[in-house]
Amino acid sequence: MNKIEHLGIAVKDLETSNILFEKLLGTPHYKMEEVLTEGVKTSFFKVGLNKIELLEATSIDSPIAKFLEKKGEGIHHVAFEVDDIVMEIERLKKEGFTVLNEVPKKGADNKLVAFVHPKTTNGVLVELCQEIID
Amino acid sequence: MNKIEHLGIAVKDLETSNILFEKLLGTPHYKMEEVLTEGVKTSFFKVGLNKIELLEATSIDSPIAKFLEKKGEGIHHVAFEVDDIVMEIERLKKEGFTVLNEVPKKGADNKLVAFVHPKTTNGVLVELCQEIID
Repeated sequence: MNKIEHLGIAVKDLETSNILFEKLLGTPHYKMEEVLTEGVKTSFFKVGLNKIELLEATSIDSPIAKFLEKKGEGIHHVAFEVDDIVMEIERLKKEGFTVLNEVPKKGADNKLVAFVHPKTTNGVLVELCQEIID
Repeated sequence: MNKIEHLGIAVKDLETSNILFEKLLGTPHYKMEEVLTEGVKTSFFKVGLNKIELLEATSIDSPIAKFLEKKGEGIHHVAFEVDDIVMEIERLKKEGFTVLNEVPKKGADNKLVAFVHPKTTNGVLVELCQEIID
């Protein structure tokens, strides 16, 4: 794993939180993106080589809607950048982790992504992500 | 803010979690440290230029003990590296954030640290940290 690619934060209202995080981080978000398959709207901030991703639910059965209902706003997941996501999924499965996506899927920000179930990682929802090179 | 310096994860048992995170991150922890004033034992892992800090409570009134009781194991805080923590505390106070340490305190890993109350940051406990140069 190369670095923390981003930290995902669940928010109720993206517009309000974009203003809040611009104040906190001292820099505006540089892009917004909707991921229809996940039922989320996202916005991204740069902090050096790392990113903060804010996530707002766009449907009631979105994982973010469920998270907000259960836990309220806050840190939702941590994403690690990997060079070879298929190899990393295999490695983690062999180590006993429950990988939720055996085949990586297309996520936000031009990435292939796979999640690791928090029950096997001390309650931390872990995302693996690999840049898609066209 | 320069980068995500580390991500703090609250765990029940540091020894067990050290083994788990070594498997997850593919690298062993490189140091352990006790912070008596905070009632925590910590261990650190490197992920590129970022770090993962595991935190175990050493007293029942430690903030980590309270977090574990209320929320269970999981991501506790995100720490951003800053060049001038005193200036950053002032900037955030002016922006309306509740800074919990008006004067930065000595934290783990040879850092001056200050926390921002999660009620003003969408439920995210934010730590500012600046390396102490002797």
